[in-house]
Amino acid sequence: MSVHVSIVDGPVLPLDSVSSPEETVGARLVFEGIVRRAEGVGHVIALSYEAYEPMASRMLHRIASDVLAAHSLSSIQIEHSRGLVPVGAASLRVIIDSPHRQESLAAMGELIDRLKKDVPIWKMPVWQPPAEQ
Amino acid sequence: MSVHVSIVDGPVLPLDSVSSPEETVGARLVFEGIVRRAEGVGHVIALSYEAYEPMASRMLHRIASDVLAAHSLSSIQIEHSRGLVPVGAASLRVIIDSPHRQESLAAMGELIDRLKKDVPIWKMPVWQPPAEQ
Repeated sequence: MSVHVSIVDGPVLPLDSVSSPEETVGARLVFEGIVRRAEGVGHVIALSYEAYEPMASRMLHRIASDVLAAHSLSSIQIEHSRGLVPVGAASLRVIIDSPHRQESLAAMGELIDRLKKDVPIWKMPVWQPPAEQ
Repeated sequence: MSVHVSIVDGPVLPLDSVSSPEETVGARLVFEGIVRRAEGVGHVIALSYEAYEPMASRMLHRIASDVLAAHSLSSIQIEHSRGLVPVGAASLRVIIDSPHRQESLAAMGELIDRLKKDVPIWKMPVWQPPAEQ
């Protein structure tokens, strides 16, 4: 049973850098939150994330530990961006390893809901400058 | 909106070979079903999967299309193994892209439940031969 949390500058690292699961793991669930092109006026080209540290890491660790214990998971890894993340790139990745799939799906929803609600990380849209007339 | 289904020989391909999501996608959810070391007597070193084709691919495609429409997802990609998959390797990968995370979590559970129930793919354990006396 393990929890790993990190806050990285810019988009989260490529998924192939993540370690393989242990032999007791039958299900790996990966969630990526991706910066998408927003609807409406103007044209967002990126989001800029600001994290209130060390509180943000501490809250991420607490939430992951709670969810790990509540659902008897094998491990949780969370990576969250700070700074600039362009449209199309991921600003959050959560990896949940568990013996079976059912517990990982319930745990993922719960973990992300708590993360969005309780972790002191804010995002601000970065707009494309208007074309010169 | 797209559905892509494939049945591959051996473990599913590395995740870094998968294409990036479209710009309207805000959430990517990836499930990997991994062959785990079974408890109990003996010592399973792999599972061997047999698929009844073309029925298996057709059913995978139908289930993915149903779930895509029901949850207004952006895309679903399913890869399933046939043949030998050793302990620690993945025999199933499902990737769901959607505008927001809520629909992808509900869709993933539904899709895998239907897949396990309705798709004609069977698995047989492969045991380690006993040590010579």
